[in-house]
Amino acid sequence: MHLLRQHIEKIVPLTDSEFDYVLSHFSTRKFRKHQFLVQEGDLVPQEFFVIKGCIKSYRMNEEGKDYILQFAMESWWISDFEAYNKHTPATLNIDCIEDSEVLCLSYENREKMCDEMHKMEHYFRKISHSGYIALQQRILSLLSSTAKERYDKLLSQYPTLFQRVPKSVIAAYLGVSRETLSRMV
Amino acid sequence: MHLLRQHIEKIVPLTDSEFDYVLSHFSTRKFRKHQFLVQEGDLVPQEFFVIKGCIKSYRMNEEGKDYILQFAMESWWISDFEAYNKHTPATLNIDCIEDSEVLCLSYENREKMCDEMHKMEHYFRKISHSGYIALQQRILSLLSSTAKERYDKLLSQYPTLFQRVPKSVIAAYLGVSRETLSRMV
Repeated sequence: MHLLRQHIEKIVPLTDSEFDYVLSHFSTRKFRKHQFLVQEGDLVPQEFFVIKGCIKSYRMNEEGKDYILQFAMESWWISDFEAYNKHTPATLNIDCIEDSEVLCLSYENREKMCDEMHKMEHYFRKISHSGYIALQQRILSLLSSTAKERYDKLLSQYPTLFQRVPKSVIAAYLGVSRETLSRMV
Repeated sequence: MHLLRQHIEKIVPLTDSEFDYVLSHFSTRKFRKHQFLVQEGDLVPQEFFVIKGCIKSYRMNEEGKDYILQFAMESWWISDFEAYNKHTPATLNIDCIEDSEVLCLSYENREKMCDEMHKMEHYFRKISHSGYIALQQRILSLLSSTAKERYDKLLSQYPTLFQRVPKSVIAAYLGVSRETLSRMV
């Protein structure tokens, strides 16, 4: 079954023709390792559903230091959601850790789909709410856990991430230096 | 206009009878300052829309130190959303900074409303997505900003919070000690 259909059907069943209609709102793009999906300052007309590969979003400060906001592997959504939603320039960079293939959904097409298909509005509500809860957990973790605890939690939640993402990038996600991370593992 | 109706109608218009129907899914409760809406270990059958007052959600560690996850003032939603959504025991405490009045919505009633009224599913999708974006900003801020920058940002976003919330609680939200906060302001 198509990866997107699997993801939607975890939440709401679709008929074949409904899924074909949903899929008609997306376009497919391939990116090579290190290529950018979004660069700071760009407008962000699309969000991305990962079919294959591994992608990261991050903010770079004035000294060139990266802060990783999010990873995305197969079946994850990624974008600069603030810029996408508010039609403002990106404050994040999004690039590929591996060669990647994504489905692209424009803001207009997402809203149109949600408007026309109650089922899709339900799907997007549920994934937004789950995402919200996951971010609350990450905030609590940043406030209250040690770097080692955050590392162990990430490893237990997403073991495959550690085979696909360089240690320096994991460190920038956890908010610790590469050296601190090396001492932990 | 009713505060809840104002909040919904920022996103989607409702007729009088639609709003009456929506409101019929809520119950009203009043709490005194320091009273708990949710205590760690409780089941969390409801989420809360604040009509009046000021409320906080937080996690307490084994040494009794608090980490503030969220504030809620008039027109904000609050709950232990993970426990509410997954029907698991609360890992947060939620209590009142001021005497408060809230509208309570059960999980079943929220899902029923979203199922019956596409408009309400749209409302909840939009507020979840906005909440998601705000939490991403807070994570970036925790990763990349100094405590002083986080303080200034919170002050500019929610100036009234500083008149209503004790400094020690603001410090626990920012992830700094009370003493560090005192040196900043």
